[in-house]
Amino acid sequence: MDQKLLYLSYADVSAVDIPMDRIVNTVEKGFEEMGHGRLEMPPKPGIHPGDGGNNFIHAMPAFVPAVKSAGVKWVSGYPGNQARGLPYISGLLILNNPDTGIPIAVMDCTWITAKRTGAASAVSARYLARPESATIGILGCGVQGHTHLEAMNVVFPLKKAMAFDPNPANAGKLAKFGNTLGLDVDIVDSPKKAVSGCDIVVTAGPILKNPHATIQAGWLDPGTFASLVDFDSYYSRDALKEADKWTTDHIGQYQYYKEAAGYFQNCPDIYAALSDLVTGKKPGRENDEEKNFAANLGLAMEDMVVAPMIYQQAVDKDIGTWLSL
Amino acid sequence: MDQKLLYLSYADVSAVDIPMDRIVNTVEKGFEEMGHGRLEMPPKPGIHPGDGGNNFIHAMPAFVPAVKSAGVKWVSGYPGNQARGLPYISGLLILNNPDTGIPIAVMDCTWITAKRTGAASAVSARYLARPESATIGILGCGVQGHTHLEAMNVVFPLKKAMAFDPNPANAGKLAKFGNTLGLDVDIVDSPKKAVSGCDIVVTAGPILKNPHATIQAGWLDPGTFASLVDFDSYYSRDALKEADKWTTDHIGQYQYYKEAAGYFQNCPDIYAALSDLVTGKKPGRENDEEKNFAANLGLAMEDMVVAPMIYQQAVDKDIGTWLSL
Repeated sequence: MDQKLLYLSYADVSAVDIPMDRIVNTVEKGFEEMGHGRLEMPPKPGIHPGDGGNNFIHAMPAFVPAVKSAGVKWVSGYPGNQARGLPYISGLLILNNPDTGIPIAVMDCTWITAKRTGAASAVSARYLARPESATIGILGCGVQGHTHLEAMNVVFPLKKAMAFDPNPANAGKLAKFGNTLGLDVDIVDSPKKAVSGCDIVVTAGPILKNPHATIQAGWLDPGTFASLVDFDSYYSRDALKEADKWTTDHIGQYQYYKEAAGYFQNCPDIYAALSDLVTGKKPGRENDEEKNFAANLGLAMEDMVVAPMIYQQAVDKDIGTWLSL
Repeated sequence: MDQKLLYLSYADVSAVDIPMDRIVNTVEKGFEEMGHGRLEMPPKPGIHPGDGGNNFIHAMPAFVPAVKSAGVKWVSGYPGNQARGLPYISGLLILNNPDTGIPIAVMDCTWITAKRTGAASAVSARYLARPESATIGILGCGVQGHTHLEAMNVVFPLKKAMAFDPNPANAGKLAKFGNTLGLDVDIVDSPKKAVSGCDIVVTAGPILKNPHATIQAGWLDPGTFASLVDFDSYYSRDALKEADKWTTDHIGQYQYYKEAAGYFQNCPDIYAALSDLVTGKKPGRENDEEKNFAANLGLAMEDMVVAPMIYQQAVDKDIGTWLSL
């Protein structure tokens, strides 16, 4: 076979550096396609090698005709890796030519995973936060804290960020990053200071089956939008009861996490899927008082709408390694 | 990340050239592990881009602790490709370090798919064919015809093969290949001549939802073992009724193909899963008169037990391209 395959390492994908505004808009377009049923995205199966089932490697396939994208992300999460100096998340994404099924690219998937997750939250926020949102609280200042700050800054006229992390060094890194975005960043020493007074609150700590439930009722101001990157780990039962609109990116997958995996036990009923907000089947925010929540889980669609942009730019910029198939 | 990834093209994997006897034995070991419940193999999801759903790209993940193998095969089948001079089957296999989740290799999956499918049939035959089987009929002399001849020749004292293909050029290729194995090969001009008088019959044509049902009752001799690589496409209802032991490699997947996808409509009830033959939970052939059938579907486990052998040999022989992750 004289077919060629483009390999893009993490450094290559980073060098392509698709801007966050394009990622947000592409992910939003993906949710629109999803809302109209114009994509194929089967449930993601996984394997769980070792560590009592805490490790996972998931296959996330999707076909999105509108952007001529077909492929799979094969992504692992090993909680014990960080203590060994290895990344928690690793993996590869394979992109295929949808017309022939033949693979055209293999790329590291960690950059895309970090960026598209922030982008999906920003899409949720576009429908559920107040448009004039200017202050954001970030609890958990790791990779997702960074990409969420970046993505929210694309969609909203942010001026100020409150950064909380149990490890102040992480909050310091986020502050520096926020400064590069032109934001004023306060490193705060209690979670409440990154919640009360904020228009947008992003909780991005470790995902826990038994929530530490730090955030109490009354901490969120009226009119706040909350993005729960770490599921419900940060929220007490009473704080969750304050939700006016509780949303997710995929209802079936959310129900699975709730019923089979034991997450989201204290959470309100789902108001809408994000795709239904994007297509207008359900209204988003309807007044300035609502406290709206997004508990997004991460979808193969999000990866697969971004991957072709990376591939095309890499080809155009002559980035990556060409291999024989 | 300073992690390294080994890329193996089709030419690389072919050059590694793991011998068929090792593949057969490794696949058998995999079925033993499966029979004891010592592996993780979730259902394989897929996407179906274009051609009215005839195209597929499947994700096939598996974790087989006994051989320290974790990974996924992402394999496409596009029936229309051959008319365009492109391969029907293409795809890649990702192998991970099960201890860290980090990918260690990406390889073309077409060699492994061809070989392990033949090997799995040979494992079925080891339990269901007569040990002295000397004559094999091959109907459909493409890739699978070749690897099945090779694999059966590892397990049985074959002397003669009967080769039938609607395209005589394919049968000619198989004859040449059979000669290299030391076999006497007759190219025959009717399907019946590749069935009657044979100890082992392999049907490896295109998979059809509406079987052409060429093989009639009475064609198979008593004592024959039949491997149905193309499902039940080749067999008439009455020929299927002659089965004494009807087996498959995965009962759940077989039921899915039967109930949801519409294959195997005229087939007998399942006698045993191959893994139950390998572990001895169910007896295999019990006399010289039985007509025994294997309708194997292909499992991720089969790929994942062979892939680490290829990886290790490639490392040892310095084959392939090292990439940064």
